[in-house]
Amino acid sequence: MIQPAVAHGRLTGLDEIVDVGRDRVRGGYSRHVWDTAELELREWFRARAAALGLDVETDRNGNIWAWWGSPGADAVVLGSHLDSVPGGGEFDGPLGVASALDAIAMLQADGVTPTRPCAVVVFAEEEGSRFGVACLGSRLLTGAMTADRVRALTDADGVTFADAAAANGTDPRFVGHDPETLARIGVFIELHVEQGRGLIDLDSPLAVASSILAHGRWRIDFTGEGNHAGATRMADRRDPMIAASRGILAIRDAARGDDRATVGRIEAVPGGTNVIPSRVTTWLDARSDLDGDARSLVAEITARVQDAAAAEQCEARVTEESWSGQVVFDPALRDRLAATLGGIPALPTGAGHDAGILSAHVPTAMLFVRNPSGVSHSPEEHATLEDCVAGVVALTHVLRGLV
Amino acid sequence: MIQPAVAHGRLTGLDEIVDVGRDRVRGGYSRHVWDTAELELREWFRARAAALGLDVETDRNGNIWAWWGSPGADAVVLGSHLDSVPGGGEFDGPLGVASALDAIAMLQADGVTPTRPCAVVVFAEEEGSRFGVACLGSRLLTGAMTADRVRALTDADGVTFADAAAANGTDPRFVGHDPETLARIGVFIELHVEQGRGLIDLDSPLAVASSILAHGRWRIDFTGEGNHAGATRMADRRDPMIAASRGILAIRDAARGDDRATVGRIEAVPGGTNVIPSRVTTWLDARSDLDGDARSLVAEITARVQDAAAAEQCEARVTEESWSGQVVFDPALRDRLAATLGGIPALPTGAGHDAGILSAHVPTAMLFVRNPSGVSHSPEEHATLEDCVAGVVALTHVLRGLV
Repeated sequence: MIQPAVAHGRLTGLDEIVDVGRDRVRGGYSRHVWDTAELELREWFRARAAALGLDVETDRNGNIWAWWGSPGADAVVLGSHLDSVPGGGEFDGPLGVASALDAIAMLQADGVTPTRPCAVVVFAEEEGSRFGVACLGSRLLTGAMTADRVRALTDADGVTFADAAAANGTDPRFVGHDPETLARIGVFIELHVEQGRGLIDLDSPLAVASSILAHGRWRIDFTGEGNHAGATRMADRRDPMIAASRGILAIRDAARGDDRATVGRIEAVPGGTNVIPSRVTTWLDARSDLDGDARSLVAEITARVQDAAAAEQCEARVTEESWSGQVVFDPALRDRLAATLGGIPALPTGAGHDAGILSAHVPTAMLFVRNPSGVSHSPEEHATLEDCVAGVVALTHVLRGLV
Repeated sequence: MIQPAVAHGRLTGLDEIVDVGRDRVRGGYSRHVWDTAELELREWFRARAAALGLDVETDRNGNIWAWWGSPGADAVVLGSHLDSVPGGGEFDGPLGVASALDAIAMLQADGVTPTRPCAVVVFAEEEGSRFGVACLGSRLLTGAMTADRVRALTDADGVTFADAAAANGTDPRFVGHDPETLARIGVFIELHVEQGRGLIDLDSPLAVASSILAHGRWRIDFTGEGNHAGATRMADRRDPMIAASRGILAIRDAARGDDRATVGRIEAVPGGTNVIPSRVTTWLDARSDLDGDARSLVAEITARVQDAAAAEQCEARVTEESWSGQVVFDPALRDRLAATLGGIPALPTGAGHDAGILSAHVPTAMLFVRNPSGVSHSPEEHATLEDCVAGVVALTHVLRGLV
């Protein structure tokens, strides 16, 4: 049987980009939409797709599509993303893109000619690491977020999405809901490294996804009074760093059962060692099984952080930055894939994906590849070559059955 | 009587730089050593000094000296710094530089010829906002910090002090203890905006400094396990953000009486919203009256943050970045200045200054100008024109008595 190409213990595709965007400070990789590393990965994708004879086009929202056969309706679309969190792992995103290209290469090598359009897509800004909203490319495509709101998003340097898009060949006037492109997708399948311990516990290299927790992001601004760290008596302070610390503990305590509540990003303004901050902003990532549970969690967190701030004569304001309701993947497609692949298990996930955004519009499925570290969004994230190859073979098998 | 030049409700010197380094995000000013704004301020200083016929030279450590008369021993040196904290006020630093130049201008206008060398000095990196250590220029000059240690300091972008110095005309091979330059200083007087409420409470426009709290900076690294914010169960986490939050509350609680303990700067690594951090670094600014009290405070904080980290299966490591023992300014000089200025009050301060570093080597004094906001290291910092003029007149009077 034909096998995907490997080099240096990796899928060749992943080996080709192993040095792109390494983060020397955090470890792992930092590849953020339209930064030097992510642009290099886009070039890598275009070249690798062209080598397979695929036609590459970039849509109005900066997502890249590589077509096998003529672009058209009812297409089978595979793919994932190339961007990472800051200091992320090697597999989250690129594994799904590289394995999709490999699946087409393997069918081509087997002499298969597709009877319906096929494409590999690279979605832009899946992690939300630059502009703060995850799955931005698929949210724009599907109209899940308005173009005006996305154009105004800013990165850490104050650069707007609109300006960054314009600087990289995506005209900001035309970003937004793209029903023509969306209408071409007959089915979307995303292969992804697993981000938890599910497949370790199940002792299986692969699973199909059953559901995604409801989740979202909220910015919480704690405001107080900036002042001199040496000249200001402790009793005279209204220190938002203290309010935020109380708030972060309250956030953790509010999460129960399968809830997840995380503060992974924090910013003190002005941020000098010898300065009591005037503002401390934290970002909350909150998730729960059902939409209502996640909403209740955030409502409780909102009340708790406001109490925490008030106890320090500070204020807390909670602003929603993104929201993704619970996703239950198409059960028929899920069961068909599981059966095709020899009865592999189905697994829920706490992680959001472009597949989750698309699932509201087209039949969508995900394949997970085991992660022996159980750790993701970290340099520790891993997948063995054997399991990656199993993923490519499974994806090829699924694609063969659909084209 | 001759008065300093004013324009638009400010000392002319301050008015000339009112738009240099404005921080549109934080408000106020961000002027960090050798950044665009601080370089512009250095040019402003050189031009203004040259217009008074002063000879300008930059020493081996990037401090600028403007000489009235020939450089030489037993000089009367006035001055302060031009850099700011991020989002700092208009007066902290530049008021002392502008008023020193004004004092010389007023004596020149009065036909005074100094009988001993006089200079105005601009010390580099007083705030420590770029390389993390305050009073870097005076610490290098006096040998209070070794050249090797300073050369290796890095800014937020990973640029070393050595590389930044080299890029700005200061040869890093020659930075460090500079006894020749130090030996020229006969007396050093720094005028500075007050950074607390002392002069508001005393209802006085001016004071002389009596002492500076013992103070220092410590970096505290909380380390845990980075992971995915959605896929990781709450019970499986070793989250250093939680440890840091507990630690920050413990730090505040450890400060008693006149102690000050502040966390104004915090950094989560990797810093993604959907990522449990692997490390959270906080910077502690701790101060107390006496050296022993400050050391005890930090020892207690160290124990408390380690307990806080252990309670979250994380670790905390405390590293000293700088230390300045308690300063008691030269009592004879202090009393002479107070008497010369009509019996103005003496005031202790919690804020560190280059004058504090120099006081271990030469007779040193400080004059404080009232700050009606009581707030400093903030855009709210203020000094009325009337009080600034009173400061210049006082400094002129003191200088006349010394030259």
